[in-house]
Order: sequence, then C-alpha cells, then structure tokens
Amino acid sequence: MAVQVAVCGPGRCSAAEWRRAQETGRLLALRSAVVLCGGYGGVMAAVAAGARSAGGVVVGVLSAADRSGAGPDLTVALPTGLGQARNHVIVNAADAVIVVGGSWGTLSELALAMRRGRVPVVQLGGWTVRDEQGRPPGGVLHARDPREAVAMTGLWP
Amino acid sequence: MAVQVAVCGPGRCSAAEWRRAQETGRLLALRSAVVLCGGYGGVMAAVAAGARSAGGVVVGVLSAADRSGAGPDLTVALPTGLGQARNHVIVNAADAVIVVGGSWGTLSELALAMRRGRVPVVQLGGWTVRDEQGRPPGGVLHARDPREAVAMTGLWP
Amino acid sequence: MAVQVAVCGPGRCSAAEWRRAQETGRLLALRSAVVLCGGYGGVMAAVAAGARSAGGVVVGVLSAADRSGAGPDLTVALPTGLGQARNHVIVNAADAVIVVGGSWGTLSELALAMRRGRVPVVQLGGWTVRDEQGRPPGGVLHARDPREAVAMTGLWP
Amino acid sequence: MAVQVAVCGPGRCSAAEWRRAQETGRLLALRSAVVLCGGYGGVMAAVAAGARSAGGVVVGVLSAADRSGAGPDLTVALPTGLGQARNHVIVNAADAVIVVGGSWGTLSELALAMRRGRVPVVQLGGWTVRDEQGRPPGGVLHARDPREAVAMTGLWP
Repeated sequence: MAVQVAVCGPGRCSAAEWRRAQETGRLLALRSAVVLCGGYGGVMAAVAAGARSAGGVVVGVLSAADRSGAGPDLTVALPTGLGQARNHVIVNAADAVIVVGGSWGTLSELALAMRRGRVPVVQLGGWTVRDEQGRPPGGVLHARDPREAVAMTGLWP
Repeated sequence: MAVQVAVCGPGRCSAAEWRRAQETGRLLALRSAVVLCGGYGGVMAAVAAGARSAGGVVVGVLSAADRSGAGPDLTVALPTGLGQARNHVIVNAADAVIVVGGSWGTLSELALAMRRGRVPVVQLGGWTVRDEQGRPPGGVLHARDPREAVAMTGLWP
Repeated sequence: MAVQVAVCGPGRCSAAEWRRAQETGRLLALRSAVVLCGGYGGVMAAVAAGARSAGGVVVGVLSAADRSGAGPDLTVALPTGLGQARNHVIVNAADAVIVVGGSWGTLSELALAMRRGRVPVVQLGGWTVRDEQGRPPGGVLHARDPREAVAMTGLWP
Repeated sequence: MAVQVAVCGPGRCSAAEWRRAQETGRLLALRSAVVLCGGYGGVMAAVAAGARSAGGVVVGVLSAADRSGAGPDLTVALPTGLGQARNHVIVNAADAVIVVGGSWGTLSELALAMRRGRVPVVQLGGWTVRDEQGRPPGGVLHARDPREAVAMTGLWP
C-alpha cells in the first residue's frame, strides 16, 4: 500500500503559503504518496492542486455531512459529518504530517499529531508553541521549504 | 469528482458472498466509481479485490487506530481510530450504499444509511428487518445479482 | 461509579411506547443507574422524564453540534457534533442497552450494541431482525414490560 | 438545564496544577455547573475531585472504549472509543472552556475550543501560542487563579 502523508493548513492562506502547499503536494505525488487533507480551500486546496498536477491521489476528509465546499482537485472527498473531530482522522491516518501555515484548526491538527506521537510532524512556517518555561515543547520538525519538509518526513531515505 | 459507492458486508463471508461482492466491486470500478468499504476481510476484501481488478480506486475506512489487518487491495487505508463509529463515516460519504450479506456490523451500516435517507440503499441477500406489524419498514431496495444492484443505485441511468 | 444503562428508541413514538420508556427510566433511576439516551424527543424524552421523576441522572448524547432540540429532563446534554456517529458512543458507554420501539436510527443502535457484544441488549417491542434463513440472529433478549427489561439486564441480581 | 464547563489539562500535572484544577472544579460545582473533563488522571482527576467535594456533577468523556483508567470522582464516565477525537466532544459540549497546564493533548483541546469560537476559553498557566509575527493569535483569556478563571467565563455575571 502507498505511503500516506497528511498536509494540514488553514482554509485561507497567503500566496506564499499557497505556493508552498502546492509544491509540497506535487513533491509528495511524485513520490507516489497518497495525500490526505481537510478537503476545503486555502492550503487544503493548494496541496490537492499540487498533488493532482503530478497525477497523485488526494483524499479530502471533510468535516461537513455532505460534499459542499469540497475542493475541485480531490480524488476522493469523504464527508464525515464529524465536525472538527475529523481532524483526528486526518492525522491518525498518516505516516507523516506536514503543517503549512497557522490557524486554530491547523494547530489542533498539529497538536493531535504530536499527541499521537508515532510519526514525524514537520512544520513549514505557521504558528509556534511555547511551554511554561517559554521553550518549544520539542518534537516538531521545522523545514525551510517544501523539499526539506518532504525530506524531513524520513519516508524517502 | 467521481461517484462514490459504499459496499458493506461482514468480515467473514461465504464463497457465494465473496463472488457477489467481488463482482460488485468490479462493476463499480468499470463505471469509474470510487468504492468505499470497511477495509478488512470478507466482503470488504472481496469488493476491494474486484474493484482493483478493474483498475478502480478503493478506500478502506478502518475502525482501528492503525493499519493492521487492512486488506491488500485498498488504494487508501484510513485508520480512523473511531471504532464502529466509522460505520457512519462509510455510509455518510457515499452516493449509494450496497449491502452484501449480513452481520450486526453490516446491519448497523444498513440502518445508518437508511437513517441518513438521502441515497439509494440496495441489499444483495443478507439479513432482513421487520417492523412491529411484521412488514419490511420500506425503502431498502433488493437486488438479485451484482449487475442489478449496481443498476438499482440509479447512478448510471 | 454508578451503573450506566442506555435506553434507545425513536424520536417519535406511540403513547404505549412513551409509557414503557418512561417506566423504564423510572425503574432504572430507582436502582441508581445513570441513564444514557439520545437526548431528543419521543422515547428519548420519555425515558428522561421517567428517570428524572425518580431523581435520577440522565445524560443526553446529542447528534447535533449545539443543544437545540434537547429534551427538558436531561441532567447533562452533550452536543457531540458527530451526527449519527454518536449512536456508537451511547451504546459503547453502557453496561446494558434497552431498546424501546423501532426506527432506522434505533436499529443502528441495536446493531451497534450487538456488534460490540459485551453487554446485555434487551428489546421492548419494536423492529425485529431475521438472518438469511429467516431466523433471529440470536443474542437479543426480548422483554414483555419495563420491569422484565430491567431485570433482563442482569445488573441487579 | 445546568451550565456546562469543560476543564482540560494534562494527565500528569504538578502539585500546583493539581491545586488549581481542584479549586476550579470546586468553584464550578458551587455554582451548580456540570463539569466536563477527559476523565483520567492529572488535571482531569483533580477537577473531578474538586467538583465532587462540593457535590457537583462531573462527566468524564473517555478516549478509550471501556472505563479502565477512569478517575474515581466521576459522576458519569463515557467511554467513547473515539480516541483523541473525543477532545472535540469535550469542548464542543461546553458553555465555556478552562485550560489548566499544558501538553499536546491539552493544546488540541484549546485549539479545538478556539476553532469552535462560540464560547469563552480561559487559560490558567500552561503552554502559549504565537502566530507568524510572534504575537498571541488573540481570543484566549488568561487568568491568574481559579477564581479569576471562573469569573472570566462570564457565566456568572
């Protein structure tokens, strides 16, 4: 079975984040990874567009109970009807998680991925977290660009 | 986006059920439908095998938190970690639901699909339901073979 | 911790079903059981009314994302936002499941409870299930009245 | 129906966090709020102990499929079998969310509560979040002690 990588990010994003997410999707599809995402706009749409441009398979795990609002580049759109509980499904189903940009929903996916703790979690920009001592809690990998993010997953040694 | 059809059935099945599920998967893939299933053995494995034999895309929505036990013919395996709550996801994400064979888990999927009520639900054999007056509650379609089941979804008029 | 019993049934019910559900709730509360239900009308409201009349604790596990439509007799209303996936939560959290009346949603709860398989499942009227040979699949207990239903849970020997 | 307040925090905590969580639970129960929590140890057990000491109702929404590991002071323990997707249920069911201490799981609850966006979210110590410009994303309230945290929910004006 193919490797599966979740790419998480906000439903609205800057042009720079769009390019990063799109390139990340493209690089993952070139490596034959299945891309998992939230299935809507912004970073989710960008990563789907990138993966599709390279002939990849993209699964959008939607929060809503129907497919309205789903992006145009998804291979499969799964309307879970679970609300934001679907964030857990996205990161739980992945062999690695890449986070592009920041929002509360995105942060919940980053935190759920770290809570799960079994797979690499790589951040490309976005929000940061500090513990009680003002230090990063540790464990999140930080990449400078999509190529480095994909490499940091460790899935293609 | 492609049409999506859920095929539900028990994790252990008879040889006749295996053939029916496999043929159903094959016919759906030939029509370019994405097949959704529970991702494990029995009917789930048979429908995946059939869809794959025709070059189709099959998504296994797993109850467990990891991919152990997932069938070999899935394009994507989504370990949801939701237990049997994943049955809701499978039927909620489908444009039509086909049920092959019977078990309590299978019946929960049939009932959740009928409770949702927006898409055709077709049974190929399996368990039956009677209301307080001993009559079928109505709404479930009954097919004699995979070809009729696929036709009864109404997705390919 | 108190014993927890789920009482499942349709959101619309007959007067006879209302009385059965209410009496079931009352009997459970008298035995200090926490009552779990779906939290809306019909059988769910009746069992909550009965439990409350005897000073019991009733938890309504709601499908919606907010409390609108929740019945007036719940001690706690949990809007899960999970849709019908919440049916899994209701029966999974119970030490016994009592089903009053029939509907597709109710049948999904009966089936999920039987699929789980660790606790007694008692039916008070409602729909029935037949396997491929026309026989009841076995395992569901059938009670004639609320008192017998509560006794059949085996929680108060 | 009673007001419902979720209190979130790590399963292991310092003595100072225990005292804060316990006092928060006590103050909420004195105001007749139902307390929702994750149902296990650390901050979850402390808030349950505090609420129970004041005669309050505490619901533990467990991630696991059974009640093993549930704290001793819960009025109701709901084993959801949803894994960390239950974090969404906890914060979605609350009229206000109070966060004590920090961990990845706790951060996911904070983020899910902020993503939901309809109710006050108050932090008592714990981890902090910075956006791309190094600023707090805004919206989270910060309290110095349990009394202030409870007041900041705005539920008892």
